[in-house]
Amino acid sequence: MIDSVRDDSSLSLAVETFFRSTFSTENPLITEAVKRMLAAGGKRLRPRMTLLAAQACGGDPLEHLYLAAYMELIHVATLIHDDVVDNAQLRRGVNATAVDYGNRISVLAGDYLFAWIFKNVTANYAAPIPHILSATLADICDGEVLQLRALGDLSTNVAQYTEVAEKKTASLFAASAACGAIAAGGSREMVEHLRAFGRWYGIAFQMNDDLLDLTSDETSIGKPVGNDLRERKMTIPLICALERGDRDFFDRISRFYAGSEGDLEIPAIVALIGEQGGIEATKRLLNAALDRAEAELDALPSSTARTELRALVEPLR
Amino acid sequence: MIDSVRDDSSLSLAVETFFRSTFSTENPLITEAVKRMLAAGGKRLRPRMTLLAAQACGGDPLEHLYLAAYMELIHVATLIHDDVVDNAQLRRGVNATAVDYGNRISVLAGDYLFAWIFKNVTANYAAPIPHILSATLADICDGEVLQLRALGDLSTNVAQYTEVAEKKTASLFAASAACGAIAAGGSREMVEHLRAFGRWYGIAFQMNDDLLDLTSDETSIGKPVGNDLRERKMTIPLICALERGDRDFFDRISRFYAGSEGDLEIPAIVALIGEQGGIEATKRLLNAALDRAEAELDALPSSTARTELRALVEPLR
Repeated sequence: MIDSVRDDSSLSLAVETFFRSTFSTENPLITEAVKRMLAAGGKRLRPRMTLLAAQACGGDPLEHLYLAAYMELIHVATLIHDDVVDNAQLRRGVNATAVDYGNRISVLAGDYLFAWIFKNVTANYAAPIPHILSATLADICDGEVLQLRALGDLSTNVAQYTEVAEKKTASLFAASAACGAIAAGGSREMVEHLRAFGRWYGIAFQMNDDLLDLTSDETSIGKPVGNDLRERKMTIPLICALERGDRDFFDRISRFYAGSEGDLEIPAIVALIGEQGGIEATKRLLNAALDRAEAELDALPSSTARTELRALVEPLR
Repeated sequence: MIDSVRDDSSLSLAVETFFRSTFSTENPLITEAVKRMLAAGGKRLRPRMTLLAAQACGGDPLEHLYLAAYMELIHVATLIHDDVVDNAQLRRGVNATAVDYGNRISVLAGDYLFAWIFKNVTANYAAPIPHILSATLADICDGEVLQLRALGDLSTNVAQYTEVAEKKTASLFAASAACGAIAAGGSREMVEHLRAFGRWYGIAFQMNDDLLDLTSDETSIGKPVGNDLRERKMTIPLICALERGDRDFFDRISRFYAGSEGDLEIPAIVALIGEQGGIEATKRLLNAALDRAEAELDALPSSTARTELRALVEPLR
């Protein structure tokens, strides 16, 4: 089992097998929407965190596969809802390929999946697990709306960014770790350390995601470089660059975010964010978050699971 | 309290007061979306059913106001998600007034409200109430997708219609009554009769809604007459008319639902549905459902609450 926890493909397989064997609806449109999103991949980090947290508390990961799968499925449901297209996007032609009724089916498929998860969790898990999952979903939505409201707001600071990252991204990692620990009967202290580990890991994960948008290439992240800039998101490298940057840089970003320059400017802006120190500053913040995550692991008794959790941190440094 | 349960405005006020005093988010966009939908009115039938069911089981309705409010809020959350606009609708210009980011905010506000309800319900209510609510939400979504799939499908029959109405509409009435009875400590038998009452009432409610679309006027239903026809919905009067109607009628509906005739044809089609017996047949089905609902009430011991529940049936006849 330790191998399956480590191995992306066998964990994916476990989540998929669970899903296929238990997700039942006579409604092919719902099933298809969920399966398509699940098949789109991902590293299954959330279920892995649940299984490793359970294992770190002395549990048998095999007994917590379902709980782990629900964590991934909450993530999948939020991705399905992320697919809902705005009128503004439609007008800009961003989603020219969207099919008729795509939005409505996406909303209903995501809702159905949330409902299905809660139906199963309330039937099979004692308090406080159902409560943690619904509170986490509330946090995720709250974080997403905060992010929408901050679009293009150049006064966004690191604290505001961190609040969004914590709600939108870190809350589900924290819940994944905490629920694994709770289900395995971990002590209150173990649960809290693992929850805090998930939280710091999640904040770092979001910062890394923001970095990849600038530093990676289209094939490895599956979307064009600088896509966050195109969407006027206030990412952490941009916030750091604005804090450090000169007046010219601020004016340049203002013009771009006001829409008076085209997407062809993106490569130049990516380069400027680096030159103004945005990427370096982000790496410092990211490493600080990872240090906090590792400090939570240091507080746990030594175990194979703890080593595996630490191994999740390394690729983000 | 009996008066407040009977009285639309005081029950609305109770739901609103509960909501304002407990729904807390620093997120004004979410709060506004929910308040706007809540203020749009409605007869608060679902919370009334919860309170009357609790009272029929010997409970004090005042003790179950929160539970009743959650039922209304589930309904409100589904209405918020109904507001999400399809690409197809946008292209037809149906939603020309939709504002930028309207869809995304609607999705997130509805998700947040669902999550908030479940967060509270899992914290404050014992099994099986949280499970019933999540299973009900799954049914509602399933019913809505079935309805989308049946749009314009002239072969839809009464059984298929009833399945959609049961999932989309009746499931929440059934859950509202059942949860009120459970929370008040009603016997298994009482719970089942009240659940069945809610279910038959909900099916009749949907049939009545379909009738109003054809027979009411724009000011009283708040949307143009024949709006369901415009959306190519397979309503029960149309299904009944198609079952009974002649070949000319079928061809006429086929042409209209295929989009080869304009909306100006709607008044003529409304008249034809009546002439082909669709309205009369629907009234028979509706009364049969109401008879089943009343039969469930007959099985309960006599009480003021039972009389009040019966009074909900009358306006639909």
